[in-house]
Amino acid sequence: MLNSLLDQIKSIGDFRKIKKHQINILAEELRNFLIANVSKTGGHLASNLGVVELTLALHTIFDSPKDKIIWDVGHQSYIHKILTGRKDDFHTLRQYKGLSGFPKRLESDHDHFDTGHSSTSISAALGMACARDLNKEKHSVVAVIGDGALTGGMAFEALNHAGQSNKNITIILNDNEMSISENVGGVSNYLNKIRTTPLYYKFKGDMENLIVNIPAIGKSVYKTAEKAKDCIKYFFVPGVLFEELGFTYLGPIDGHNYAELCKVLESTKNISGPILLHVVTKKGKGYAVAENAPEKFHGIGPFNINTGELLSTNKNLSYSELVGNLLVEHAENNEKIVAITAAMPSGTGLVPFSKAFPNRFFDVGIAEQHAVTFAAGLAVAGYKPFFAVYSTFLSRAMGQVINDVCLQSLPVTFLIDRAGIVGNDGETHHGIMDISMLYPIPNLTILAPKDGNELREMMDFAVNLNGPVAIRYPRGNVHSLSSEFPKVSIESKKGEILYNTGKDALIIAVGHMNELALQVCERLKRENINVTLINPRFLKPLDSNLILENAIKCKKVYTIEDNYKYGGFGSQICSLLNEHNIFKEVNVFAFPDKFIEHGDVNLLYDVYGLTVDDIVTIISKDFDSNIINKIVFNR
Amino acid sequence: MLNSLLDQIKSIGDFRKIKKHQINILAEELRNFLIANVSKTGGHLASNLGVVELTLALHTIFDSPKDKIIWDVGHQSYIHKILTGRKDDFHTLRQYKGLSGFPKRLESDHDHFDTGHSSTSISAALGMACARDLNKEKHSVVAVIGDGALTGGMAFEALNHAGQSNKNITIILNDNEMSISENVGGVSNYLNKIRTTPLYYKFKGDMENLIVNIPAIGKSVYKTAEKAKDCIKYFFVPGVLFEELGFTYLGPIDGHNYAELCKVLESTKNISGPILLHVVTKKGKGYAVAENAPEKFHGIGPFNINTGELLSTNKNLSYSELVGNLLVEHAENNEKIVAITAAMPSGTGLVPFSKAFPNRFFDVGIAEQHAVTFAAGLAVAGYKPFFAVYSTFLSRAMGQVINDVCLQSLPVTFLIDRAGIVGNDGETHHGIMDISMLYPIPNLTILAPKDGNELREMMDFAVNLNGPVAIRYPRGNVHSLSSEFPKVSIESKKGEILYNTGKDALIIAVGHMNELALQVCERLKRENINVTLINPRFLKPLDSNLILENAIKCKKVYTIEDNYKYGGFGSQICSLLNEHNIFKEVNVFAFPDKFIEHGDVNLLYDVYGLTVDDIVTIISKDFDSNIINKIVFNR
Repeated sequence: MLNSLLDQIKSIGDFRKIKKHQINILAEELRNFLIANVSKTGGHLASNLGVVELTLALHTIFDSPKDKIIWDVGHQSYIHKILTGRKDDFHTLRQYKGLSGFPKRLESDHDHFDTGHSSTSISAALGMACARDLNKEKHSVVAVIGDGALTGGMAFEALNHAGQSNKNITIILNDNEMSISENVGGVSNYLNKIRTTPLYYKFKGDMENLIVNIPAIGKSVYKTAEKAKDCIKYFFVPGVLFEELGFTYLGPIDGHNYAELCKVLESTKNISGPILLHVVTKKGKGYAVAENAPEKFHGIGPFNINTGELLSTNKNLSYSELVGNLLVEHAENNEKIVAITAAMPSGTGLVPFSKAFPNRFFDVGIAEQHAVTFAAGLAVAGYKPFFAVYSTFLSRAMGQVINDVCLQSLPVTFLIDRAGIVGNDGETHHGIMDISMLYPIPNLTILAPKDGNELREMMDFAVNLNGPVAIRYPRGNVHSLSSEFPKVSIESKKGEILYNTGKDALIIAVGHMNELALQVCERLKRENINVTLINPRFLKPLDSNLILENAIKCKKVYTIEDNYKYGGFGSQICSLLNEHNIFKEVNVFAFPDKFIEHGDVNLLYDVYGLTVDDIVTIISKDFDSNIINKIVFNR
Repeated sequence: MLNSLLDQIKSIGDFRKIKKHQINILAEELRNFLIANVSKTGGHLASNLGVVELTLALHTIFDSPKDKIIWDVGHQSYIHKILTGRKDDFHTLRQYKGLSGFPKRLESDHDHFDTGHSSTSISAALGMACARDLNKEKHSVVAVIGDGALTGGMAFEALNHAGQSNKNITIILNDNEMSISENVGGVSNYLNKIRTTPLYYKFKGDMENLIVNIPAIGKSVYKTAEKAKDCIKYFFVPGVLFEELGFTYLGPIDGHNYAELCKVLESTKNISGPILLHVVTKKGKGYAVAENAPEKFHGIGPFNINTGELLSTNKNLSYSELVGNLLVEHAENNEKIVAITAAMPSGTGLVPFSKAFPNRFFDVGIAEQHAVTFAAGLAVAGYKPFFAVYSTFLSRAMGQVINDVCLQSLPVTFLIDRAGIVGNDGETHHGIMDISMLYPIPNLTILAPKDGNELREMMDFAVNLNGPVAIRYPRGNVHSLSSEFPKVSIESKKGEILYNTGKDALIIAVGHMNELALQVCERLKRENINVTLINPRFLKPLDSNLILENAIKCKKVYTIEDNYKYGGFGSQICSLLNEHNIFKEVNVFAFPDKFIEHGDVNLLYDVYGLTVDDIVTIISKDFDSNIINKIVFNR
């Protein structure tokens, strides 16, 4: 690739030197570079292949960083990153301390807003447009949003506001007919109609002719039209839905035709007020295996370029898959069980359910707020809804969890996937706040399984409980832990002792962190430190008796969790002990009060002191005979 | 009013016996009853006067409780409550243990979903419709939603889902041209056009005639039309925006014409798939003073029926008003300050700001998610946005607070109004979870002023801080506290000592609870119990030094807050002491883990042990010499 066009681009200035007739060559080089790199690093591929020409056109017509381009969600910003001087760092994509998989203002002046979650770009862009006008500056503000992200309510809230604002702002609707999975909803149907019915265009021309040229015949029509020019406009324009909201609609145009894109983008500069430009793209464009399986290539690990096959095929069962399978089993015996996803049927393991029970499966679009209250509606009517959702995305629907589900104590189960750190997607995707956020909500039972078997029991429990439940489990493969202790039925609402060599240290570990905790116990045993390990199972309500009776007997308490320390499990234990006048030091192993960067999961555990070694070292020190006596008592 | 029609209605069955020709009399009786009662109890008036005929028509045509009627937000459900057997309890409206101001499933079989927050009804109704179809039942599901609530994104998420679902569901758009204040946004403009342009109707008829009857002339049009009947439909129907989403649009119809309402509602039963019925009503209808001031009569205290004047005119400054005034002062000196409300300019005190700086004031509709990210967009462009929002409504935008503001550490200030209990609006409106929800979010500074002067200092602080801030303050009048202790500048980020007679008890009180705490101190002094009172001011980050050095010296710690105990301020103090090996009992005065009912604020404080008497009693007991020695130490 030496002397390639791409190699010449070290900055956006270099890109601007590229001749128009060379753009197609550059597009091909970009695709090859992207495929070659992501095949090694993993990452979001299909969506980036789909926006090659759009990104090239945007950077041709707009003058970043003066002009602001905001990428909704942001996983389609790779081409943008490459063109704005980050090609040479691209091999570090999504690695610890490397390039982020999302736009980051700290990474480049060309990244104007940090994204990661869906449907935020129009709001941010409108804020920037208002700021620009207050400053009496002149520059363009462009939001690029997918048709999937448009199903998110806040995108509509922003359209509603922008439509009335009369601000110069361009929304580019990147319509690839998909969220991560196939798209759903009325808007999706509507966009599909625009795309597939050229008559919209044709009809528009015909009607205008009719009204202007044959007034004598269509007289009453004409008169009406004359009096209501404003109305007429709305009847004859495709994209009437957006026009009604106050936008000038342009499109649909071919998102892989660089010349046409440039022409239309240039024309947007002469239109005042908000514009919606409808661009039709194809996910995976130019790479056959990705075009044919865009969902697989949405976010993918390292793969073989020729075949598209993953290099490390993980045959192990994931928690998501297990949850999906368990839900199918239950649904076979209980016709009241229904499943809901917010545009994540595959990621949350619900594909088997959707096939087995299509009538009882609901993909509501990227719409967590609606998903929760829709579940509440099903529940008041006697159904048992299970809403499977990534921990980080549930934060978008806390108001609904509180007021629509828990206030009425409805039997909705939140299957909280990707709880804990998720790795390379980073800050916006870690699920390390859910314990803190959910804990203050009355009526909600919060569970965390130590392994796959326990998850199975918790699903049974949730099916039978007539009230709201949250079950949090991590990204990745199902654990399988063994313990010699007698099994305690989950129906008892009790925690369990997983390890017991004595009462020096009491460890209480949340969910899958018990795997690590068991290893800690084994290591401490070798150091002759006696340990009891409790798996609480119920994070709320706590099995107070079990915890208190063991806490009283031990010298010091340690909690281990993959949540923030503030408001997390450990802090609840502090409060519990305090409430019962048990004055023991509680060492809380949890994430500190900062946003946790992207990087390999194990590496992040290491950075934040959540490894067997780290924990053993600290506990060992505490029980060093010289030190244990020094623990201060000041009352 | 003896022998009135209304007196005969003890249940919905009685209502059904009322003759059609008597309905207008009943409507008048209902209005008189409503006005008479709300003038005594206070409550939501204007919106209920606006739906008298609509409610009568709904209960005429639909067979509740078999048919389900869901009231969005729910403050317009009074007529519904009266017709469904709750007239005799109506004098208890919004009183402790009395009727709720919102629909409550526990209150009546006719209340199908608990509401209180905006924009949830379509989601809940769609859930019920899906359940009905799975159960192969036949009944109607009707959601009544205002045009204001329609600006909330989750309403759009639900429309998007419902539009594709093909479920039989009727959405009644109760279009009164207002949220609580005047309505905003593209949708509002659009509805206004439908209402004020009868040509929409006229044109529809004309066009259909043209196409059907004069094919020879409009030939090309006709051909196109033939091939695209589907399109035609959308061009010629008012409410095309809803039609495009998959709804059958009916309307606009006069919401005060009972006969017409009945006719159209009856007709909805013969239309399959989702229907949107656009009903135009007038807030305050039939009561001139309310018609003329619908915002004032949205939610109102006891008033004089003849004049509409409030019986107790509170001349004191409220926290909301103070915040609004302070923001105006700052904005006069700092042109970067902008203010945002989600449809609450009046409630949050922003009306003076909106008048003084119309270009720097943004009412975004009932759209908290967009409001937060819009603020973030303004902030990245160099502005200082202040988003004034009720505590309970901010829970709808936690994802955006986390990912769009705090992750980028943007200088957005959240002015959290109505923190603590709010009284008669009850469960859905108390603001007693914000400390718990916000605490785990990195980068966020959380402040609580003890009184008006401190709020002023905190506003200064927020204006100068280059990062996200939350300032929480209660509903009601501004406190004014005095202390003999030297004033500590807020810029020091330190807490302050408000009272100090010694070190028996350390009290740490949040915000305005310091007023109560000071009274507690005085009472304890009389009992010869020595107390130190800390006003932390910074809930996060805590002034650890101040708290720890006082905690070390005291015998016992007490925290007082108007938040839930789980994850609240007291629990953070427990964790802080634990982290520093200070083993002192912390008695946390806070709300217990249950939803707190409606009722007078002082009564609720009494019920939950948050009065001077309660707290003094408990502290006194602790320092009874017989008991203090018994506090267990088990290490």
